[in-house]
Parts: sequence; C-alpha cells; structure tokens
Amino acid sequence: MGYTAAVAGASGYAGGELLRLLLAHPEIEIGALTAGGNAGSRLGEHQPHLLPLADRVLEETTADTLAGHDVVFLALPHGQSAAIAERLGPDVLVVDCGADFRLRDADAWEAFYGTPHAGTWPYGLPELPGARDALAATRRIAVPGCHVTTATLALFPALAAGLVEPEAVVVAVTGTSGAGKAPKPHLVGSEVMGSVSPYGVGGTHRHNPEITQNLSAVAGGPVRLSFTPVLAPMPRGILATCSAPVLPGVTAEAVAAAYRDRYADEPFVHVLPEGTWPSTAMTLGANTTLVQVTVDPAAGRMVAVAALDNLTKGTAGGAVQSANIALGLPETTGLPTAGVAP
Amino acid sequence: MGYTAAVAGASGYAGGELLRLLLAHPEIEIGALTAGGNAGSRLGEHQPHLLPLADRVLEETTADTLAGHDVVFLALPHGQSAAIAERLGPDVLVVDCGADFRLRDADAWEAFYGTPHAGTWPYGLPELPGARDALAATRRIAVPGCHVTTATLALFPALAAGLVEPEAVVVAVTGTSGAGKAPKPHLVGSEVMGSVSPYGVGGTHRHNPEITQNLSAVAGGPVRLSFTPVLAPMPRGILATCSAPVLPGVTAEAVAAAYRDRYADEPFVHVLPEGTWPSTAMTLGANTTLVQVTVDPAAGRMVAVAALDNLTKGTAGGAVQSANIALGLPETTGLPTAGVAP
Amino acid sequence: MGYTAAVAGASGYAGGELLRLLLAHPEIEIGALTAGGNAGSRLGEHQPHLLPLADRVLEETTADTLAGHDVVFLALPHGQSAAIAERLGPDVLVVDCGADFRLRDADAWEAFYGTPHAGTWPYGLPELPGARDALAATRRIAVPGCHVTTATLALFPALAAGLVEPEAVVVAVTGTSGAGKAPKPHLVGSEVMGSVSPYGVGGTHRHNPEITQNLSAVAGGPVRLSFTPVLAPMPRGILATCSAPVLPGVTAEAVAAAYRDRYADEPFVHVLPEGTWPSTAMTLGANTTLVQVTVDPAAGRMVAVAALDNLTKGTAGGAVQSANIALGLPETTGLPTAGVAP
Amino acid sequence: MGYTAAVAGASGYAGGELLRLLLAHPEIEIGALTAGGNAGSRLGEHQPHLLPLADRVLEETTADTLAGHDVVFLALPHGQSAAIAERLGPDVLVVDCGADFRLRDADAWEAFYGTPHAGTWPYGLPELPGARDALAATRRIAVPGCHVTTATLALFPALAAGLVEPEAVVVAVTGTSGAGKAPKPHLVGSEVMGSVSPYGVGGTHRHNPEITQNLSAVAGGPVRLSFTPVLAPMPRGILATCSAPVLPGVTAEAVAAAYRDRYADEPFVHVLPEGTWPSTAMTLGANTTLVQVTVDPAAGRMVAVAALDNLTKGTAGGAVQSANIALGLPETTGLPTAGVAP
Repeated sequence: MGYTAAVAGASGYAGGELLRLLLAHPEIEIGALTAGGNAGSRLGEHQPHLLPLADRVLEETTADTLAGHDVVFLALPHGQSAAIAERLGPDVLVVDCGADFRLRDADAWEAFYGTPHAGTWPYGLPELPGARDALAATRRIAVPGCHVTTATLALFPALAAGLVEPEAVVVAVTGTSGAGKAPKPHLVGSEVMGSVSPYGVGGTHRHNPEITQNLSAVAGGPVRLSFTPVLAPMPRGILATCSAPVLPGVTAEAVAAAYRDRYADEPFVHVLPEGTWPSTAMTLGANTTLVQVTVDPAAGRMVAVAALDNLTKGTAGGAVQSANIALGLPETTGLPTAGVAP
Repeated sequence: MGYTAAVAGASGYAGGELLRLLLAHPEIEIGALTAGGNAGSRLGEHQPHLLPLADRVLEETTADTLAGHDVVFLALPHGQSAAIAERLGPDVLVVDCGADFRLRDADAWEAFYGTPHAGTWPYGLPELPGARDALAATRRIAVPGCHVTTATLALFPALAAGLVEPEAVVVAVTGTSGAGKAPKPHLVGSEVMGSVSPYGVGGTHRHNPEITQNLSAVAGGPVRLSFTPVLAPMPRGILATCSAPVLPGVTAEAVAAAYRDRYADEPFVHVLPEGTWPSTAMTLGANTTLVQVTVDPAAGRMVAVAALDNLTKGTAGGAVQSANIALGLPETTGLPTAGVAP
Repeated sequence: MGYTAAVAGASGYAGGELLRLLLAHPEIEIGALTAGGNAGSRLGEHQPHLLPLADRVLEETTADTLAGHDVVFLALPHGQSAAIAERLGPDVLVVDCGADFRLRDADAWEAFYGTPHAGTWPYGLPELPGARDALAATRRIAVPGCHVTTATLALFPALAAGLVEPEAVVVAVTGTSGAGKAPKPHLVGSEVMGSVSPYGVGGTHRHNPEITQNLSAVAGGPVRLSFTPVLAPMPRGILATCSAPVLPGVTAEAVAAAYRDRYADEPFVHVLPEGTWPSTAMTLGANTTLVQVTVDPAAGRMVAVAALDNLTKGTAGGAVQSANIALGLPETTGLPTAGVAP
Repeated sequence: MGYTAAVAGASGYAGGELLRLLLAHPEIEIGALTAGGNAGSRLGEHQPHLLPLADRVLEETTADTLAGHDVVFLALPHGQSAAIAERLGPDVLVVDCGADFRLRDADAWEAFYGTPHAGTWPYGLPELPGARDALAATRRIAVPGCHVTTATLALFPALAAGLVEPEAVVVAVTGTSGAGKAPKPHLVGSEVMGSVSPYGVGGTHRHNPEITQNLSAVAGGPVRLSFTPVLAPMPRGILATCSAPVLPGVTAEAVAAAYRDRYADEPFVHVLPEGTWPSTAMTLGANTTLVQVTVDPAAGRMVAVAALDNLTKGTAGGAVQSANIALGLPETTGLPTAGVAP
C-alpha cells in the first residue's frame, strides 16, 4: 500500500463509512482512528459491523494524533476542521467531510452557520466542470454535503447546456443516517418508522447555499432554488426529485441527450435506460449516482431524479474519490459500483 | 342505526378501510360485502385485522347483491362502477372510491385512462368551495384520488386567495398501500423496504388531470402542474411537498393567515402551529389532514406541505365523510381525528 | 359520561395510547393530564397524533393534580406509584401501568428491580382464572407488562389443562415502542431499521419473574421459564413464540381444543382458524390477542404463538379493560377489536 | 484471474448476491449468466444494483450454456440441479445453493420435499468438523439452507463439547429476501412492513431435517429440534435465538469458553465480547456470523444467539467460501467481513 490515512470522527456514521471503504482500498492503509467523547474506547463498541477493526482503540482527535499520515479524513462537527488542518502541514492531504470550507460566499456561510467563515477549499465533486484539475493540484478538499451532491448531479447538466431556466425546485427524500448518530427525540426508531416528514423547509436548510453555489457557477448566473428535504423511514439513501422550467422548444430527447453526453465517461454517475427511474436501494453501499430525466410538456418543466447513498457517494465515497484524484491514483480505486440489494 | 351500507371490493385495501370505519360508525350498519375473484371466501382470510367481520362470507359483486341498502360503497377497479350504479336506482346513495366519475373533461379522461368517459358525479372533497351543497343534494359521489386530496388541500387556499401564480410543483411521498393488494414484483417487501423511488414521472400519473381540475376551478383559470409521486417504505401515508411562485409582496404571514382562515372551521383539516411540520405518522388511521405553509423569500415561492392517511382521509374516510353529508348526518359522524402513533 | 379520569405520564407512549383509547370511551371523560419534565407544555408537542387534545396543557404529576377524578391511570417510571396512590384515597380507582405492584414475591422484586417491594395489587389480566372477581372488587390495579400479557395468554391454557410440562421457552419479538420514548443510542432509527437483536438474554429481563408468577399460579407449581425478548424494526407489536414439552399422548387436536375452550367467551383473545398463524400487524391499535397452537410430534413440544399490540392490549387497552371491570362497566366498553391494517 | 464461473439463476436474489460477491473476487471471472423465464433480457432489468453487469444478457439455463466454466453456481428452484450437474462433467466444480443434495436421509428428503431423493454432496458449511477436508476433495458442493447455517453455528459447539442435552429450541427471525423474489400476497410490502409472523410452525419447515442432520452428526446421536422461523420487516438477515438444557454443573463461563475455542480460528464466525449480543444489521452484506452465548441458571438452559446475512454467509457467501476451498484458494478470498451499516 502506498499511503496511510487517519480518520477523525471514526465513531460516527461518516467515519464508519470511510473506514468500510478504506478497508477495501488497495492503496491506502488505515492509520490512526480518533474521536471526541468516545476516545479511549474500542472501535467495535461503536462500529460493530467493522469486524476487522473491532479491537482498534480510538485516540483523542488532535493534530498530534492525526499527524504522520499521508491523508487525514475529517468527519467532525462543523467548526473543528480549520484548527486541525492548519497544524497538519501543507503536504498532508486533508479531506474534510464537514461544511467548514465548502462555501465561497462568506456572507452565506455566516447567514446559515452563524460563525465566521473559515475559508474555501477545492470542492470534492469531481463531476463538476473543472473540479478534477483543482483536486489534482490540492492538499485540501471540501467534500460536498449529501443533499448537495444529489441535487447538483441531478440538475447541473441541464443548466450547463442552457436547456432550463435558472430556477429549480428540489424535494429530496433522505434516510435517517444523514442526521447522524446522536440520539434525538424525533430520530428515535418508533417515531421514524412509518413516517415521512419534511425539515428545513422554506430555504432554511444549510445545504441551500451550497446547492445554489454549484448550480449558479455552472449556469453562469444566479439560480433560484426551492429546496425541501424530507425524512423517510430507511437508514440510507437520498432521492432528489428536481424540476425546472424548460426553455422554449426543449424536448425530452434533447434533455436526455445532454445528460447522456455529460455523464458518458463518468464512472460514478449512471443515466438509466429510458423509462427506468432511480431508487435508493439500487445504490446501497455503492459510490454510484443514478439519474433519469424527462420533460413534462404540460407543465413546461424538466423533471430530473437522482439517487445515491448519502453515506457513500454522498459523503465517504465522494471523499475517497476526490482523495484518489489528489493522490494521483485512478479515480475509481477501491470504490464499489455494485450496491447491496435487496 | 339509521342506515345500511354494502361494500363492493371488500377484500381490498380501500374496502377494508371502509369496513374498519363503518364498524365504528353509529348510524350505518354493515350489510353485504362483495368481491370479485374472492367471492365465496370468508372476509377473515383477506382482512384478518377486522375480527368482528371475520366470518362474513363475500358475495359476488353484482347490482343484485348490492341492492337493498341505503348506501353502496364501491371500491372497485376502474370501469366497473357505471354499470352497477345504473342498476341500483336513483335513491340509493352510491359512493365510488374509483376514478370513473371524477373528471369533468372527457378528453382528459380518455387521454389518461384510455376508455370512454362515463360521466361526472359530485365530487367528494367537502373542503372545496361549494362541495358541501352539491354533496347534500346528490345520491352519487365520486371520491377523489388519494394524491389528489393531499395536493388539493395543500394548495387550493393559496390559489383561492390569489397569493400565488397558477403554477405548482408537487412531490408526493406515499406509502405502498396506495398501489393496492395485488402482488407485483416492485411491490414485494424485499424491494420496497429501504427504498424510495418515483413513479408516473413527467405528468403521466392519472391523478394529474384531477389535481389540475381542482386547482384550476379554484384559481378561476388554468393551473400548470408538475406532479411527481414517490414510493416510500411505509404501508400508509402521503406527504405532499407543494410549492408555487408567490405574487409580489406576499409574505409568509399572509399565506399562513389565508390557510388558517380557510381551514378554521374544517373538522378534518388542521393547520399546525407555526414552526411545526406535518408527518404522515401523526395521521395514521385518522381522517385528518395536517397542513403547514411558509414562504421562501429567496426562492420566491410558497411551500405548503400536507400529510394524511391515504386509506383514511385519502379514500375511505373521505368517502364516509361525504356520505355523512349526503345522508344528512353530522359530517364528522364515526370518523376518528386521533391517529394511532407511534 | 359517568366517570372522569386523569392520566399521569401523558406525554409518554403508554400515556398517549391511554388517551387515544379514552377519547373513544363513551363512559370516561378525560380530566387532568400530567407529566414530569414535560409539565407546562402543550400535549400537542408530545402527542401530535391526538389532535382533539392538542391544546391541553400538561400539569405536574402530583397527588394534588391527580386528585378529584374517579379513575387515575399511572403511566410512570417504576417507583413513583406508591407515594401517589397512598395520597389519592381508597375510593379512587388507581390503575398502574408500571411494575411496582405486579409481583407478589418481594425477593423476586428486589432481585430484578433493586428497590424495596411496594406491595401487590390485584392483577389486570382479566383472562386469568379468578382475575375478574378480584378486579371487580378493587380500587387498585396493577397492569401486566406487555411481554407478560403475551406470553401468559399464549401459554397458560395448556398449563391449566395439564397438557404440558411446567417448562417453557418463550422468544418474543417486539416493536420498539416498548422501550419508551427516551432517545437512546441503540433505539435511534438508523440503528433499528433493518435490524433484529435480542436483549435481556439469559433470564435477566424484568418480565421474567412476572411471567413465571402467572404461569406457576395456573400450573399449581413452579414453572421453569427461558424468556428472550428480541427487538424488531417496527414501532408496535409483540409476537411470542412459545413452546413446552407435551405430556405423553397429547395431540395437536387436544391442545387446540383446550385453547378454544378456554378462550371461547373471551372478547379480546381470539384463537385463529386452523392453519392460520398470528401476525402483529393484524392487531395494530386493537385490544386483541391472536393465538394459534399446534404440537410438533418430532420435537415432543407444543408450540403456541400469540400476537398483540404492546401499547394496546399489552398496556393501555389492558388497563382500560381492567378499569371497565372495576367500574362495573361492560368489559368491552370503548375498546376496539378491529386493527388498523395494512 | 485463475477461474471462470457461470451463475444459473442470475436474476434471483441468491444469484444476484453471488454476482455481487464474484464482482469483487480477485480469482474468479464471471462467465455465463443464465435464467429461466427471464432468459433473453438484460441483467440490469432484474439486478439494477449490479451496474457493472447491467448490459449482460441472460442465457437460458441449460447444461450447454453453463458448460466451459471452471465453476458453476446453481441458484435454482429445487429439483433442477441433478440433471444439469450430471451433464457438466466431473471436473467442473458445481456449487448448488438449492436443497437437492443437502440431506443424507432419503426418507427425510421425501417427507419434506415430496420428490425422489437425488443424492448427497459434500456439505458447504466449512465450520463443521471434517467439512473442510471433504470440500477440498470434491467437485460437488451442497450449500446449506440459510436458517440451517444460522442454527447450526449457534448450537453445534455446545453439542460437540457435550455441554447440553440433545434437545434444542430454535426461533429464527428472518428478513424477507429468504422467501425469494416471486411476488406472493403475504410478501407484498404493505403486508410485511410493521408485521412479524411465524411460518412453517410445528416442525414443518424444510430446514428442519437439515438442522437436525447437522446437530445429530456433531452430537453423535439424535437431537430433538423445535424450530420456528419468524418473518420480520427487513430485507435481509437472520437472528436465531437457540436454547438447550445444560447438563448439570455447566456454567456460562464453560459454555462461553467452548464457543471461543471452537471459533478461535474461524474467519467468518465471531464470538462477540461478553455482554454484547448480535444484531442482524451488523452483518449486512458481510460473510460473517456473529455469536453470543450464556446460561440461564433459573431456566437450566444455555441460550445461544447467532446472526448473519441470509443472502451472504447464509447462501452466496457460504457458496463462495466453500468454492474457495474446493479450488485450493485461501478460504477468505474475495469475501467481505465488514458489513454495511447503519
């Protein structure tokens, strides 16, 4: 193995998924595992599904415990990445699964996160125009939010091709793991099973400015976004139903062609055969995004749907994919494209 | 008890829910239970949860077996209601849970259902303007589709009050019982659990023209609709996330006030306290629709969310509610407003 | 309405189910609703499914707030009932859904609960021999644990009829609501969905001595019990698979006859038709226990399976059923026997 | 890659899991994919999660289409394996995931399957005494049933060590994928979600004689078995709660030591740390069996619980593990031990 990696936040969901993927990665060896309140305990207590690492003991998350690795994956609460990254030195590849360095607009950051803006790092969504070059040249990567990856991949080809107006509506149904592992009353199993409920309605969700940033960059001008996330009774998966008004004369065929062209060579975005629509279950544990698109002529809107696993392509898989690029490895190294189903 | 009722299609999901409600209805006695292929078998084989009726034997669905009751509830596949209703006589209250008599536009009917239009009956959504008068004066009721009730109740107050443009986007997450009881490959439990997937995308779902009909009537002109249903891993419930562009100067407060006014006296539509959003689980088994609304100023859109139980308020409860009106009973007779949770 | 009832612990799952049932009870009017930490807040914040009571404000749980009602239902953590009951006076019917007064054996109490034994009240399982007489004559009722009701109803007829050896194995699969509403890491939805896991293994669950107490009383001598509860991904329901060695010559027919005889007149226990086995979904929200039984000749064991809703017949429904008896009302008053399915 | 493998029954659940594992197997290349009624269609229509194989076309399942590979995995309905295996020639490794060659007792076969006994092949449960030698020397492997693997691994160490009486009770909670992909009324999602129900009660399930065969061989004499499978609302996973009377003086420590000794070197069976009990979610997609054991002194019984993924270790993973042995590869080649969670 060519590289070593530390994982900070190893006892959480994103950290656990990073470790599951790294266990199968042929070029990265797992080094230090760190945590906050769980430091000192065995990983097996928190990630019992990761049997090969069950007896590894979690260290405290500090720059010291994380130092000495080629790659450091940060899966931490917002606000903790900057201090650690500064002390790790410019040669260490730091891949931040948190939000701290995702937004370019400091005002948007402060409006949605309420703290001073830490800065901006190259953005870990390789499928965006220009992203791969930036990732190949950096030691700092900001991994997108899970809703952001889904909505962006569903919508940007149409905006990039100038097929729709810069005005999108996104309703994204998500599994519960995106809310993390901390027990909260509304996330208790009895409340979640059998129930579907929206949250962050009315433009208040923190992924809002990040989706807008991506789409506006591609569209070459401001994109208006209505984004509503909806919690569904499943542990993993996001399905984003997205729509935007089509420009005059744009047909379903034209839109489909734009998506097929855009994603023809993408290893982790797959436009489904005509008439087949994505489901979250198809992507469980895989680094795959499934996409389908059509035009509703009566509504005058394009409808694009994307599905992915929020913890894999939506977080940890996207992180590893971007890290592969930064390390100069083949982008697909160690990343599964077959899901676990049924 | 003042009235007797027959239920056609008693072995299906809608029929079962009708019977569950009628068992608790103080003014309606359950008469003949009929079925198609299941005629001759005990109800207990098909509806094991309806213990008080377990030993009732299903008769063949014909006008003869259904005759002799004050009310006949039809929960049949599309296309069977007209022939039966004709033979039942004008004094029998016929409440059709199927689609046959919902649409006024024969062209829309034929485009979406592919058969000749059977006609139009008074529409069983009492909350719509003028609906109660029509229901009080009829012996024929067309019960709305479950998605239609949800989207209509979520959106029509804003259109009626002239607060939004006549252009709506609806993404409705639904449980699996709406697809009925017939076993189909994509509805098998192994496929459904852990998965969310859209269907009828791009304006092709049969509830499309029905939602449009309701909203256009209220808006006083054509409403453009983009409607996408999404299947979620739960047996019951619909949560519709709806949005439309607000007219200039329309605030969240103005929209909320319009909904509170509209639904102030409605027994089965409840606008939640500010900041609280509906979930499907709150409505399980109840005839209640929960609604919340806001405005996203950055997007320039109103977002309204409604949740209900697709089998109760979305089908059988709505049918009983409308029947109560037609029979001259208090509209709320026998209908629960408390759900079963968790 | 003849009676008023207060509910202590109204913000929890058992309290919520009590209120759901009492809302439909024709002879009991809902009085004070009390809580511990949630006192002062609206019930609607905690039980959003109970719309008719949404604006009721929770009072502090004290003997004073509970006083002045004909019935007081206690749905409190263990250890709090005695002090309250003492101050309520002997004429108030106190129905305790907690464990405090269930066990007759003070040593067993102390071994399993670790606190001094508070005493023993008449036991709220009317189906047990002699129970109805005791309930009719008391103002104090100890409602059984949910696993206890299930296992007892599954097994006691065979022991009472002397058909099996006093040695039972019970594996009870249960929904998550039995664990209550407090958020704990292992009860978070992401952990619960898709997972089945045992708890309280090896005779350590607190329902162990209570099941043993019931079965031994019926058998007329000590019954050995191996009891394992198993958590399953559903909010409600218990399915207990129970077995015991049959005595020589005992056939499936003999066992079935004993169960049919025993439960012939029971309104809330239903022996299913031959060949049909219970499922939890059949009982959702109903006060029903479904039972089936057979003999496995190769194993030399009777196998009895019972299913019920842990919050209804397993807790709140059993409480109301017992209260009905104590109040001199028909035992079935206000209690549904039709479940909510699918 | 050293070997090629064909998969018969590639459109079903077992076939799909075989393919998912083989995609990650470094020494086996996937050759022909065959099916019955689905022959002629793309694999992507049936296994949309297996993106890398989506465009492979299913051939008809015949000896001809399967010929020419080093390994043939059969995932077929019972009764079809013998004819195919005969024509494949003695040098081809045939791994049968069906039941045809599992039982040694022709009478038991005929009693439970109703057809003539096809014979007996070396048994694909490497953890059983002597199994690895037999597997290393054969070109024909009968893969155990999923319940059988679970119950056998939970119980046999105690029987082999002479710690319990030869008399076991097994209640095995299982996900729905074990019932296969064919849509049946009781497997429809609406019926399955929220429900737990037993099947094959009273010793009638076909895995009964197979579990008995395994346990009796290890115990050196007949073992009496009471086995009840229970369907739970999850796609994958089996959790078997097993118990047997302990012999006098046998302690929890002694039993635990026997299990730790037995499984110390097993790569795919893991005895959990003391106090930790298995859950099915820990094993999703992994070839791992998790085990824990204790003694209930009051009941006089050992309680052993095992969890695994019915499609992985319970079927396809066990098949690949056994094939690895027969091919002379390291037994763990290509088999994951980390599950997908949450």
